[in-house]
Amino acid sequence: MDFILDVDGVLTDGSFLYSKEGKIYKKFGPHDAYSLKKLSKVINISFISADSRGFEITKKRIDDMGFEVKLVSEEERYEYIVKNYNLESLIYMGDGDADARLLKESFKGIAPNNARPLALKSADFVTNNVGASGAVAEACDWIVDNLIN
Amino acid sequence: MDFILDVDGVLTDGSFLYSKEGKIYKKFGPHDAYSLKKLSKVINISFISADSRGFEITKKRIDDMGFEVKLVSEEERYEYIVKNYNLESLIYMGDGDADARLLKESFKGIAPNNARPLALKSADFVTNNVGASGAVAEACDWIVDNLIN
Amino acid sequence: MDFILDVDGVLTDGSFLYSKEGKIYKKFGPHDAYSLKKLSKVINISFISADSRGFEITKKRIDDMGFEVKLVSEEERYEYIVKNYNLESLIYMGDGDADARLLKESFKGIAPNNARPLALKSADFVTNNVGASGAVAEACDWIVDNLIN
Amino acid sequence: MDFILDVDGVLTDGSFLYSKEGKIYKKFGPHDAYSLKKLSKVINISFISADSRGFEITKKRIDDMGFEVKLVSEEERYEYIVKNYNLESLIYMGDGDADARLLKESFKGIAPNNARPLALKSADFVTNNVGASGAVAEACDWIVDNLIN
Repeated sequence: MDFILDVDGVLTDGSFLYSKEGKIYKKFGPHDAYSLKKLSKVINISFISADSRGFEITKKRIDDMGFEVKLVSEEERYEYIVKNYNLESLIYMGDGDADARLLKESFKGIAPNNARPLALKSADFVTNNVGASGAVAEACDWIVDNLIN
Repeated sequence: MDFILDVDGVLTDGSFLYSKEGKIYKKFGPHDAYSLKKLSKVINISFISADSRGFEITKKRIDDMGFEVKLVSEEERYEYIVKNYNLESLIYMGDGDADARLLKESFKGIAPNNARPLALKSADFVTNNVGASGAVAEACDWIVDNLIN
Repeated sequence: MDFILDVDGVLTDGSFLYSKEGKIYKKFGPHDAYSLKKLSKVINISFISADSRGFEITKKRIDDMGFEVKLVSEEERYEYIVKNYNLESLIYMGDGDADARLLKESFKGIAPNNARPLALKSADFVTNNVGASGAVAEACDWIVDNLIN
Repeated sequence: MDFILDVDGVLTDGSFLYSKEGKIYKKFGPHDAYSLKKLSKVINISFISADSRGFEITKKRIDDMGFEVKLVSEEERYEYIVKNYNLESLIYMGDGDADARLLKESFKGIAPNNARPLALKSADFVTNNVGASGAVAEACDWIVDNLIN
């Protein structure tokens, strides 16, 4: 079983700080790293991001948590996942319009509460928490309680 | 058809971080750039801002999204828009007291949920989301669903 | 008539960002500067702060808005105000335990929604908005609607 | 009587800003330092943190408030507290899964509203406020009102 997570809006709240030099900071939250680390002992966890402008920030955080992240544009995301993973055993967590199809066709789709309407409608489980406020930790709980035994 | 958006409080949450050197950061949010890019294929999109102190930050973000932004003071905003655009085919999105007249007199006025009372009252559509949390993406949805066919 | 405002929690949301070098940023919000500027044409407006560690940040922001701010400790605040102002014509806006007595004894006391319980109880008017999200602009509206004619 | 507080999610909102250089900022909030200073005249207050990556930031803030903080991993936290403190007279405030046992076995356990479900269930008192928005000040109020006389 694989668990793939989008980064912005899922592991972050989707916001980013701009200075006159550009995109400088992203906001991450509590509990997620702790819960992912525990869950990674039983299923494979990896990340995907379409944000090329902020990818160095994203990569630094995911590296620090001990996971891997791939930069794949929104247009190519579906093809990339289908080619590299088995949708029938994939748990996918995303929040955008471009995630809707994957949320629907994966074994289980999870959306954070702050997701776009189309993503919310396409998910099997919507967390009570928003990104960077425990959405990922809550998703890990749900996976442990419902999909692992 | 033109779609003009105010920046602070609409594309941002209106907040900004100060250090002892002054205004350094503004907070932008998810989904807006993606939705604007798609909408820009069918209507003209541009931005207007009255924040001279933070204009370099604003300009950097709008440049990165591939749009244009003009710095026009709150006092001159109405005259500037009337002179350069046709109110009868203009969609205007703003959140401040100085936006109220434009929200009322434009073809369609849109206010984010966090707008000032006068702006909320003057708008044709108020988004459920606040600035930097999807208000602009939601406005794009509304335009596509109601004004474009 | 004078209008004195506390800064942290009133003009900011009370939060501040720390790096390993210490307190670096404070978060200010939309609409407040615009509303204060308009109101300052009819009543005197000034600021007071007890945050010595972040005073340079505070001072920079208040300077940029064109107002003055005094650094006075929480313990000395009441004495300072009584000595320099006339409580009978003073509008005071604050959010902390140390503001409660001033909120009660001033002509009018205003607290933002995020104020401490004792401050909320002591105020004549509690804004619907929290600090850095329009609390000060809302206070200005209230003053114009209720105290100025 | 001792009062030990976890830092991230309790004194902060649990979030942290990442740049491409890593974890740079944590967000602290209003009222907490003021209330802790007053309470420290009657009970011993100290802090504990498991965040090694952000410990320099944490330490700087706790130093500035005049308290001490120990870096102890989540796995070693329970043992460390039991060895160095008397659970029967300990008030413990924490928000994570790793805090649940301490919240339960301490004299009194306090959790901020944003705590994980397991921590919320294990606490004697859950604050209405979240971390960095007055949770600690509210906990101090509760201690003064209920445990000190």
